[in-house]
Amino acid sequence: MRLYDTHMAPNPRRVRIFMDHKGIGGVEVVQVDINRGEHRLPAHKDRFGVAHVPALELDDGRVLTESRAICSYLEALHPEPNLMGHDAFERAEIEMWDRRAELMQLMPTAMWVRHAHLGLATLENVQVPQIAAQGEQGTRAAAAWFARRLDASSFVAGKRFTIADITLFCALDFARVVKFRAADEHPSIARWRDRLKSMAGFGG
Amino acid sequence: MRLYDTHMAPNPRRVRIFMDHKGIGGVEVVQVDINRGEHRLPAHKDRFGVAHVPALELDDGRVLTESRAICSYLEALHPEPNLMGHDAFERAEIEMWDRRAELMQLMPTAMWVRHAHLGLATLENVQVPQIAAQGEQGTRAAAAWFARRLDASSFVAGKRFTIADITLFCALDFARVVKFRAADEHPSIARWRDRLKSMAGFGG
Repeated sequence: MRLYDTHMAPNPRRVRIFMDHKGIGGVEVVQVDINRGEHRLPAHKDRFGVAHVPALELDDGRVLTESRAICSYLEALHPEPNLMGHDAFERAEIEMWDRRAELMQLMPTAMWVRHAHLGLATLENVQVPQIAAQGEQGTRAAAAWFARRLDASSFVAGKRFTIADITLFCALDFARVVKFRAADEHPSIARWRDRLKSMAGFGG
Repeated sequence: MRLYDTHMAPNPRRVRIFMDHKGIGGVEVVQVDINRGEHRLPAHKDRFGVAHVPALELDDGRVLTESRAICSYLEALHPEPNLMGHDAFERAEIEMWDRRAELMQLMPTAMWVRHAHLGLATLENVQVPQIAAQGEQGTRAAAAWFARRLDASSFVAGKRFTIADITLFCALDFARVVKFRAADEHPSIARWRDRLKSMAGFGG
């Protein structure tokens, strides 16, 4: 298997942490430099159909994009430690929390970063300040919402560590590039982050 | 089971079509009037933790939100007709296509509608023309991309009908409220839509 990765981007990081936590080895990692537009070159777009990272290529040539879909495949191949649920309800509940982390937290943060950070100007045709402002507002509101969740719950999806923690961690860590430090504002997020930092995949 | 639904909104519609197509009966449907802010009332928010529709309440009181998570649960309870994949790779591939339909098509359309349509002014604190413009651009680009896909493939995820078709259908149909008719611009989308219209769940 070959993982097409971009080191600084939050979505590939979700897959890397997921793999590290499961101890999945033997995967060749290829860096795609999105600042140089490598994801938009035919070598990448023709292979995957989209200018996206992460992307996974199997040994038989089949491909997957979309971080969560890649994780679903890896979870089926490597079921333990379980990160996506055992039975029907738990799987759906973890999917719900993973989607909340992605749609409520990572999405507005991505809008904020892409439309406000000078380093990402090359990735957007136009950076729109109003979109950055909306992204900032959404980022702060979601962080406050997840802080309340993590006051009541040890992990995002409940009592144990799951893929939803990985997604929220990557989202909040990404917000640091626009100087938003959720853990400084919300003690419950700081405690949760410290719990994660001791786990496989979150080192460094 | 009880489904909290909003008739005009695209995400609850994804779940309704999914249920209709599987012939799942015996579910009580409760209408939530989001224009009157019913999703923000404590009766809804305290039950589900979020001001979202759709939401599913099981007979034992457990709850799920997020349209795709609800579908995952229903797929496990009612595996046939299969809409989310049989084996590990197919499940991941369909999830990839479902996410593409959602993130590439439904998301920008939702931005466009929410920030441009007068009828939705009450749902947003502020409607931002620049976000509507970005949403329109993304909607048109994604429709052209899916039109190329549907030139090469009978259905979104490949040779058979899946949840990804439901998501794309709901996204494109929602764009009609801002007068974007993808099927008028892209013959392959018109042909695909006609194929769906003959199937269970798409009537009327």
